[in-house]
Amino acid sequence: MATEFDTGLPSIRLVQNYIKEKKTVEVQLTTGEKLSGQLLWQDAACFCLQDEGEPTLIWRHSVVYLHPQS
Amino acid sequence: MATEFDTGLPSIRLVQNYIKEKKTVEVQLTTGEKLSGQLLWQDAACFCLQDEGEPTLIWRHSVVYLHPQS
Amino acid sequence: MATEFDTGLPSIRLVQNYIKEKKTVEVQLTTGEKLSGQLLWQDAACFCLQDEGEPTLIWRHSVVYLHPQS
Amino acid sequence: MATEFDTGLPSIRLVQNYIKEKKTVEVQLTTGEKLSGQLLWQDAACFCLQDEGEPTLIWRHSVVYLHPQS
Amino acid sequence: MATEFDTGLPSIRLVQNYIKEKKTVEVQLTTGEKLSGQLLWQDAACFCLQDEGEPTLIWRHSVVYLHPQS
Amino acid sequence: MATEFDTGLPSIRLVQNYIKEKKTVEVQLTTGEKLSGQLLWQDAACFCLQDEGEPTLIWRHSVVYLHPQS
Repeated sequence: MATEFDTGLPSIRLVQNYIKEKKTVEVQLTTGEKLSGQLLWQDAACFCLQDEGEPTLIWRHSVVYLHPQS
Repeated sequence: MATEFDTGLPSIRLVQNYIKEKKTVEVQLTTGEKLSGQLLWQDAACFCLQDEGEPTLIWRHSVVYLHPQS
Repeated sequence: MATEFDTGLPSIRLVQNYIKEKKTVEVQLTTGEKLSGQLLWQDAACFCLQDEGEPTLIWRHSVVYLHPQS
Repeated sequence: MATEFDTGLPSIRLVQNYIKEKKTVEVQLTTGEKLSGQLLWQDAACFCLQDEGEPTLIWRHSVVYLHPQS
Repeated sequence: MATEFDTGLPSIRLVQNYIKEKKTVEVQLTTGEKLSGQLLWQDAACFCLQDEGEPTLIWRHSVVYLHPQS
Repeated sequence: MATEFDTGLPSIRLVQNYIKEKKTVEVQLTTGEKLSGQLLWQDAACFCLQDEGEPTLIWRHSVVYLHPQS
């Protein structure tokens, strides 16, 4: 399990902005499923998404793409 | 096989809380299958889930997302 | 998460050219979905694609192939 | 190819117990296929499963979960 | 992203021969799609395939197998 | 791309035996396809399989399991 987390990476910073701005994002997963909600935080392994009820821990290795909901 | 296990990571700590609180969680797998039960422990490679009968060893690389059962 | 990004690699440089030339590219994803648009930037983990509206962050591990739209 | 093999990991030790006890296990694979049999040994890359006839070498990266057959 | 590229590896050398000999190869991808054409170059991350029109950048992690077209 | 290749690993040695003995093996791939033939060699990234005509280069990351044909 990689535990490095380079906060200078543009992709990390873009996601960090979505977190600060509490944007609703859509996350496309490798299974074909799409989740949407607000990102609460990210770390080297996961994103934490607030959709309904309890937060969902999404593993980075399962994310295909991500964008703000239009 | 990575054997590092950074217990300071928020995602590791969140799962550790689910273990301590014996929460029933749902684990979405890359195959599309969803397992639910109580997490017994985690290590760098796996989660151990108690569903029915004998515990199930789930590999981290196969987990898409995880949340407490609502 | 790997954070190395070898800008001397031919594949990195080819993508960098597509970015500079604002070429419309097609990106084939592991899910079978194909996205098209202009690449805005790349980093060690992701490509940023401008298709419609807000940009889409695509993870490298989910890209199967990429070419300029014919 | 990773060649580290941390025999202190709980998941490695649990599998090692299944090997010693000659338990019949079910192995769920990323393809959706499920194999069952007795584990003969494990190393950093693979599990060796005795089902019928010649043993089957299963790659760790293709294992979703594993449990003793109920 | 791994940037090592061991040109002494037999698999790297075999592909390098296909490039020099301008062999038409078939590349089987993880999505089930098969591409065919001439390999132009390889690097640590990708193969560059000339099929029709603009070249296609194929990521190594998405290649299942490859052989000369029969 | 990993270029380490630990020839002391039991799984590497077992495959090496199949190569020496020219056993016909079946290789199950992540796409669900199964290839059979004789293994010619292995390296850190690939297996080289002789089925019909030209040899097929199979990437390790795409192999689910492998066994001698019964």
